[in-house]
Amino acid sequence: MSGAAGYWRLTIPHANVSVMEQAAENTAVPKKDPYGLRPGEVAVELPTHFDASLYYIGRIHTPWTRREDCPKNARESEAVCTVELDPRWADGLKGLETVSHVLLLYWMDKARRDLVLQAPRHYGEQRGTFALRSPVRPNPIAVSVARLLQVRGSELSVVGLDCLDGTPLLDLKPYFASTDSVPEASVGWHGATKR
Amino acid sequence: MSGAAGYWRLTIPHANVSVMEQAAENTAVPKKDPYGLRPGEVAVELPTHFDASLYYIGRIHTPWTRREDCPKNARESEAVCTVELDPRWADGLKGLETVSHVLLLYWMDKARRDLVLQAPRHYGEQRGTFALRSPVRPNPIAVSVARLLQVRGSELSVVGLDCLDGTPLLDLKPYFASTDSVPEASVGWHGATKR
Repeated sequence: MSGAAGYWRLTIPHANVSVMEQAAENTAVPKKDPYGLRPGEVAVELPTHFDASLYYIGRIHTPWTRREDCPKNARESEAVCTVELDPRWADGLKGLETVSHVLLLYWMDKARRDLVLQAPRHYGEQRGTFALRSPVRPNPIAVSVARLLQVRGSELSVVGLDCLDGTPLLDLKPYFASTDSVPEASVGWHGATKR
Repeated sequence: MSGAAGYWRLTIPHANVSVMEQAAENTAVPKKDPYGLRPGEVAVELPTHFDASLYYIGRIHTPWTRREDCPKNARESEAVCTVELDPRWADGLKGLETVSHVLLLYWMDKARRDLVLQAPRHYGEQRGTFALRSPVRPNPIAVSVARLLQVRGSELSVVGLDCLDGTPLLDLKPYFASTDSVPEASVGWHGATKR
């Protein structure tokens, strides 16, 4: 684990972007401190190149337009959300109407990507990015399970999301209990604390 | 749904790549037919630009080097697989050792991305890409649940994967039964057929 030395390992990921522009791009970074690191947070230098690329295949519409309004746990909300698929991909929904639950993959486009250690306010302890479900990660892809209510043309109605309105969609998959459900799974560090 | 007309909607996604090169890139496409479509499969024109980009953060090592050797269902195999994280991200594992199961996101880099309707050989019926877990999809990101055995430096030992040796890793997340496990979920079309 890196200690105080690692704390300053951050450099500018893209040489053609100024520090402040980079900070603006990554949002949620207070303007006064372009690094925006809290105590216990450690950033690394991002790789110099990308390895693969994504298409946004649609948008997710939810009732929440500010991060602080989003439910803390997706299962806490019964809000009906709409997944609007790009019409190009509409035929890809054939057969999905027979499915009770879907896996949604979406892109958390507001999150910075360079933190390896994080100190979320509600936990108050330093943990690795891969031990957390924080949007801040090298590839900010979220995975959510949602209950499917209806498929109408290229639109889906679902329950069980907690993301911001307008979030870009990357993929939809049928949820198979046989391989995706592990009721006995545990997260030791989580213990009695709330996710 | 597109019928026979849609069958020929395929065009060349990248103008600077010849049809045959494109076919080679997408592999699993027989050389004799650059489109490589089976009856019941429908391709669409891919968008002209990408929207976001990914870093490979490591590689997954499995015993399987040919697609036909991979287990059909990840839970059928007790093979121990190794996740080798790029050392840049090693600190991000802090706390993950307390987790029983992880979600692994990986990039199925051998899959073509333009099919909306597919006719997998073992099912013999036409279904939409988003009703299937096929690697062929606009963003070929797989989501797998694996049992975590050990974390050693920047390496993890896990059980429950079915991908090819060398598959690029995109993300690791702790699996939370409270939000990720839905034992009662069903896939209607799947019924008595095997996944």
